[in-house]
Amino acid sequence: MPNEFNLFPPLPWSFLFLQDLIGTIVFAISGAMAARQHKMDIFGLFILAFVTGVGGGTLRDVMIGSTPVFWIKQPIYVLMITLAVILTAVLKHNIDKKGWQKGLLFFDAIGLGVFTVIGVQKGLDFGVHPLIAIALGGVTGCFGGLIRDILRNEVPIILQREIYVTASLIGGAIFVLFYYAGVESRWVDIVTISSVIFIRLLAIRFNLNLPRI
Amino acid sequence: MPNEFNLFPPLPWSFLFLQDLIGTIVFAISGAMAARQHKMDIFGLFILAFVTGVGGGTLRDVMIGSTPVFWIKQPIYVLMITLAVILTAVLKHNIDKKGWQKGLLFFDAIGLGVFTVIGVQKGLDFGVHPLIAIALGGVTGCFGGLIRDILRNEVPIILQREIYVTASLIGGAIFVLFYYAGVESRWVDIVTISSVIFIRLLAIRFNLNLPRI
Amino acid sequence: MPNEFNLFPPLPWSFLFLQDLIGTIVFAISGAMAARQHKMDIFGLFILAFVTGVGGGTLRDVMIGSTPVFWIKQPIYVLMITLAVILTAVLKHNIDKKGWQKGLLFFDAIGLGVFTVIGVQKGLDFGVHPLIAIALGGVTGCFGGLIRDILRNEVPIILQREIYVTASLIGGAIFVLFYYAGVESRWVDIVTISSVIFIRLLAIRFNLNLPRI
Repeated sequence: MPNEFNLFPPLPWSFLFLQDLIGTIVFAISGAMAARQHKMDIFGLFILAFVTGVGGGTLRDVMIGSTPVFWIKQPIYVLMITLAVILTAVLKHNIDKKGWQKGLLFFDAIGLGVFTVIGVQKGLDFGVHPLIAIALGGVTGCFGGLIRDILRNEVPIILQREIYVTASLIGGAIFVLFYYAGVESRWVDIVTISSVIFIRLLAIRFNLNLPRI
Repeated sequence: MPNEFNLFPPLPWSFLFLQDLIGTIVFAISGAMAARQHKMDIFGLFILAFVTGVGGGTLRDVMIGSTPVFWIKQPIYVLMITLAVILTAVLKHNIDKKGWQKGLLFFDAIGLGVFTVIGVQKGLDFGVHPLIAIALGGVTGCFGGLIRDILRNEVPIILQREIYVTASLIGGAIFVLFYYAGVESRWVDIVTISSVIFIRLLAIRFNLNLPRI
Repeated sequence: MPNEFNLFPPLPWSFLFLQDLIGTIVFAISGAMAARQHKMDIFGLFILAFVTGVGGGTLRDVMIGSTPVFWIKQPIYVLMITLAVILTAVLKHNIDKKGWQKGLLFFDAIGLGVFTVIGVQKGLDFGVHPLIAIALGGVTGCFGGLIRDILRNEVPIILQREIYVTASLIGGAIFVLFYYAGVESRWVDIVTISSVIFIRLLAIRFNLNLPRI
């Protein structure tokens, strides 16, 4: 006898969940767009969108032992990624336009901020050391794009450019400081996400980079 | 005092286990053959055979939280991979022959079918959503070859060619449909594996590809 | 209310723990040095140091189900890696000197020996088959460098050169033999680590390689 299952499991609506979905979609689109440069077919594109959208959170969950990982428990993520892939395929002729790329960078900054917050929060919920929570925020925010670039066979762009990991780690540090200062959870989230977005946009706008070593 | 252990733990013989072993061997051979193009020594070859043979299943087990992962619990897999490596090293002079390569593509198709079935089944056993079970079938079937190509420093071939991921996902969908239609387990397996093999061989024979995006 | 945490959790001092720290630092330095060739900024450098230093042990812990993984439970590892990164950045002008590189190869051999021992021991503690324990020693010792090279977008050097995986697996086999022969734990460690270091230094000194397949 097959297991029962809920075809449409209830969604855990919250401010952060909504942003998590947006972050997943945006990261998935960036993965799908990257795939287009490699003459992949629709499923190759899907896989790149998939690893970019859920790769960071999957790694985090696996390392702290929160299994099954989040997207296995809640099918909405795979659905969102499918949507992102279709969107990218449909919009492919408009995709080189500058406005679209600017928009993507903006949404990507939101994704980075949200994923950082979710990673740090999940780490603290598991009772880890604040320093490690910041690291988990970085893993959640940055490793999706890292895995995407590994699959594309390129040196991960986030290791080379424009204060990306930096923005996530600074955001994580801000989160931890406000959290232990007793600031209300919602405000900790908002301040952290805003900081990450602000740092990223500043870095992109003025083409800021840390000095190479 | 050292832990006791069973030097030859009993094998869980079944139709599917037998095919699982065949799938592991065939994927391991494909990994070992790929290594030969990179001037690796015998242990480099072994590692590529290893990750190709068990990489997909390992990722699946880790993500659903079925740890220790399957090949840690049952040493037969490492033994089979060792066998595959020796076989490849011994047969290296015959390996360029067309017949051998055709044979490998055929066995690889079997491996893909079997691994897809095992992945979907294990997902359903863990009570995941059918959509996610299909994804886990794809991970099990496709990610071993993906990791192999990452280690070889190439864009994974399965993202680019000949309806590979596609065959696995269609197979997974067939499995789920038949499973929830109440078809007997053995027949679900046979129909799914046959479908995957059929789609793959058709794609290879007629050099079918999905359109690039 | 935030979780309580211990800002400086007590360290589990032991001979092996001390070596583990040294191994982590040395591997982290090798990761940071590798990053320098790719014009990464300080955080790119940190991430390469990080994955090289803890990558192998993380993979081992995740696959046997020992989660949260070791560096999440004990922040000293991230601190040691930060130290290694600062050290590498500060010493960058001296780093090309031959003496330094020789020293690094020597310490890397120590790291490989220690990580092999820790991997095999942890496997046996989890009650796995000795053959699998040897494999876990190899994963712990070798996969940090493997992930480092994947991120650098190169074919992993350990698959190609100078009896690296081989040294780890031979060390693992020696460990298992002595362990089941009832030799005292400390001596098992010392003999294994010495063997790995000896094999590695011999291979480097005489430029030994296994035959390519």
